Amino acid sequence: MTTEASYADLVSRLKRAHVLGTVNGLLGWDEQVNLPPDSADLRGEQLAVMAELHHAAASDPRIGELLTLLEGRREELTADQQVVVRVGRRDYDRLVKLPPEFVREKARHTSQAFHAWAACKPKADFAGFAPFVEKHIELAKREAAYLGFAAAPYDYLVDRHDPGLTAAVIARLFDELKAGLVPFMRAVVASPVKARREVLRGFPVEKQRAFLRMVTEQLGFNYRRGRIDVSLHPFCEGSGADVRMTTRFNEDEPLSSLFGSIHETGHGLYEQGTRLGDQGTPLGQSVGMGMHESQSRLWENQVARGRPFWRFFERRFRRTFSRQLRDVSSDDLYLAVNAVAPTLIRVEADEVTYNLHIILRFELEKRLLAGTLAVADLPAAWNALAQELLGLTPPSDKEGVLQDVHWSGGMFGYFPSYCLGNMIAAQLWYRVLADLPGLEEDFARGDFSRLLGWLRNQVHEQGRRYGTLELVQRVTGEPLSPQPLLRYLRERYGPLYQV
Amino acid sequence: MTTEASYADLVSRLKRAHVLGTVNGLLGWDEQVNLPPDSADLRGEQLAVMAELHHAAASDPRIGELLTLLEGRREELTADQQVVVRVGRRDYDRLVKLPPEFVREKARHTSQAFHAWAACKPKADFAGFAPFVEKHIELAKREAAYLGFAAAPYDYLVDRHDPGLTAAVIARLFDELKAGLVPFMRAVVASPVKARREVLRGFPVEKQRAFLRMVTEQLGFNYRRGRIDVSLHPFCEGSGADVRMTTRFNEDEPLSSLFGSIHETGHGLYEQGTRLGDQGTPLGQSVGMGMHESQSRLWENQVARGRPFWRFFERRFRRTFSRQLRDVSSDDLYLAVNAVAPTLIRVEADEVTYNLHIILRFELEKRLLAGTLAVADLPAAWNALAQELLGLTPPSDKEGVLQDVHWSGGMFGYFPSYCLGNMIAAQLWYRVLADLPGLEEDFARGDFSRLLGWLRNQVHEQGRRYGTLELVQRVTGEPLSPQPLLRYLRERYGPLYQV
Repeated sequence: MTTEASYADLVSRLKRAHVLGTVNGLLGWDEQVNLPPDSADLRGEQLAVMAELHHAAASDPRIGELLTLLEGRREELTADQQVVVRVGRRDYDRLVKLPPEFVREKARHTSQAFHAWAACKPKADFAGFAPFVEKHIELAKREAAYLGFAAAPYDYLVDRHDPGLTAAVIARLFDELKAGLVPFMRAVVASPVKARREVLRGFPVEKQRAFLRMVTEQLGFNYRRGRIDVSLHPFCEGSGADVRMTTRFNEDEPLSSLFGSIHETGHGLYEQGTRLGDQGTPLGQSVGMGMHESQSRLWENQVARGRPFWRFFERRFRRTFSRQLRDVSSDDLYLAVNAVAPTLIRVEADEVTYNLHIILRFELEKRLLAGTLAVADLPAAWNALAQELLGLTPPSDKEGVLQDVHWSGGMFGYFPSYCLGNMIAAQLWYRVLADLPGLEEDFARGDFSRLLGWLRNQVHEQGRRYGTLELVQRVTGEPLSPQPLLRYLRERYGPLYQV
Repeated sequence: MTTEASYADLVSRLKRAHVLGTVNGLLGWDEQVNLPPDSADLRGEQLAVMAELHHAAASDPRIGELLTLLEGRREELTADQQVVVRVGRRDYDRLVKLPPEFVREKARHTSQAFHAWAACKPKADFAGFAPFVEKHIELAKREAAYLGFAAAPYDYLVDRHDPGLTAAVIARLFDELKAGLVPFMRAVVASPVKARREVLRGFPVEKQRAFLRMVTEQLGFNYRRGRIDVSLHPFCEGSGADVRMTTRFNEDEPLSSLFGSIHETGHGLYEQGTRLGDQGTPLGQSVGMGMHESQSRLWENQVARGRPFWRFFERRFRRTFSRQLRDVSSDDLYLAVNAVAPTLIRVEADEVTYNLHIILRFELEKRLLAGTLAVADLPAAWNALAQELLGLTPPSDKEGVLQDVHWSGGMFGYFPSYCLGNMIAAQLWYRVLADLPGLEEDFARGDFSRLLGWLRNQVHEQGRRYGTLELVQRVTGEPLSPQPLLRYLRERYGPLYQV
């Protein structure tokens, strides 16, 4: 078999697995958006059969043979082909090195742990949930060991979400961020300037829907290859040819749907920007969670919380909601868009305090996986950190250690991506401002195409050619640092809150 | 392996294939309801991979072995298990007796023929479409030959849709129906009484949606295991645990959405009535197309075009659309519900003339498959029959032989099911009226539960235990006959049109 034919065979098998993955994705989307309430059992059967078929296709032994063959003929491959073989090997090994019994055990435990969490959270019953976390930590360590990370399980978990990162690198970045962020956050909170989001009330859902459709389309989301629907928890699903976002509406929280949708649009633009012809191979996939979050955050925060964005959209917003905004001044509206208020609940946090929620979780995960924090001591450790970082102590574990779903899924190493995404977004932001003079004047005219073109070229079309840190270095010319994020927060919130 | 274990193994393999079939069904539903316009290529890839996996699961050689084993131990099986083995064998043989190259050739030709039809219809270019019909006839004959029906291909095609039926049986039923129907239809058309549907105008879509949701729920459709959405062509998809109907709206055709939705509700109630625990086996499936259509037609026509139904719903209809119905009398409304007007277009036909459209297509298909009518002579034969049966001649082939999509898909033998469904509906109707005294008084109180319970018990829960004719005989105590349909049409339309 020629090298060319072997490579074509590899790609066709990767694409086949990818297509099955997109079917699973659609089943998941439909479950959140459309599934009738009593049809969940059937959906469970569908997902189970499809997961099995997807796993079989992705761990097809012929893929392993082709990878070995092509690794032996590296010099005959183009640079792009080398990326596919190198990253394809990593994906393949991660799949086949986990024994099927282990995968089943983890899936079973994840389902049980989710139900335990859902039952314990309303009762603030951490003791009832603790054994499930302990088991998840044990499973995570075993998983890391299968992949050769027995000595550093948290590094494995971090790398799985953000290729190339380690716990030590993140700790250094987060410490530097924390040092700058905690005093700044305290100053903003102490400011006499207060945003009043509660003045925004009674925004009819249908008008919100039309407005955010207009905004997201203007930003560049292609509705000929995507849609937006309603679900309980907003998300973005799909890649390339069919990208589906969701949002939720509250008549008294219009900015919540709007910014949530712009956030998902950032994810959606990344997926729509991956190369269509390379779907299913590492050349047509996103780098990782942190880079993905950088795209959603850049559009949500750097772009849509800025004055130029509102210079264009305020008039349209007021036209759509003239009655609701009659007594709201431009300054009040802009302050509401940039409200800062520490809260115990991560998903309700503003962009200044949000990162502190992540640092808290990272510090706890790191110690849990290193074995220096016992699960039984988790609530006390959580509460101490919440007081230290946010200046707040949860009244119960419901508003504390039990608030997030992630640990019930064993998703350790996922949280840091949120904060890494914020850092990357700010670092990309100052780079693109330097690369494209007058960029924000485009926004004031409703033109976001130069920004999108730059992101397409610099990030979206790169696929998984580079790891997270390497791509940041290549695009911005600097290693990843929290300083651009600190600078951005100071520049945006300093003048607004007079600190 | 014990008989019990073998049977359990068979059922689990049938269910696995079924679950994959439901995934394909969902992909098809999503394509009609949600798919973004430029995402069709990806959907094509998804459907192709899934069709292949579904075919592999359903034609799993182990299913054939288990069937053979269980056929040899018939006396150890319960009556239910014997049904599964007997019908399972028929399904399995139909799958594995078709060579894969044939299946691929037919799929390829079907796709090409569809595009040819879509291109030729607007131009009324039958000559351009004719070679595709010829090829489909050849494929249909080859398919029949693979299944042992070389001498009677149309019998094979008919039996595929309605198990147990033959072209000769249908011809006898249709001739008898035609003899009674044509003179009655002519009398109705000649009546001075005329329905005026055009008085129903400007019914807002959102109110139509709410009204038909209320009606279909009242009839018994379970929205906890189903939904209704909008698509270009109405259909009903799914079975058992997740049944999805669609409709379409026109502000000036409120009865079209309403009756279309009630029709799909009839299909949906059948699917929701199949036994949940037997999904994927012949015990949890519908008998065939004719029986399915009997359910949709019974709810649409016998129930929802009747006075008792309107005695309950007219007040609610007027409450929802008070302005639109201000000048419409009860008699006018009821006449609009039961409008009769011959048309050249099958999908626009009323229930009196509809059957004549089907008889026309059946007579042509029978001759085409018998080789006594050449494809080139089809338009002339069509036009002659249209004049004979409907008293109308198509101005062009667009309104004649090219109007339906079915033949572009090689779906010969499908049309008769529509008319068989009407016959079966009427025959079931007189049986249930005799079995459940005072049934229509229930309807006038908005109670349809006794009817639904009877249909569940007599039809839905029977699965594929009996063929179409056998089930009709068992339920009604009479062989299938067109006389109940003729009686029903005379009783409904005779007094209304004073004939």
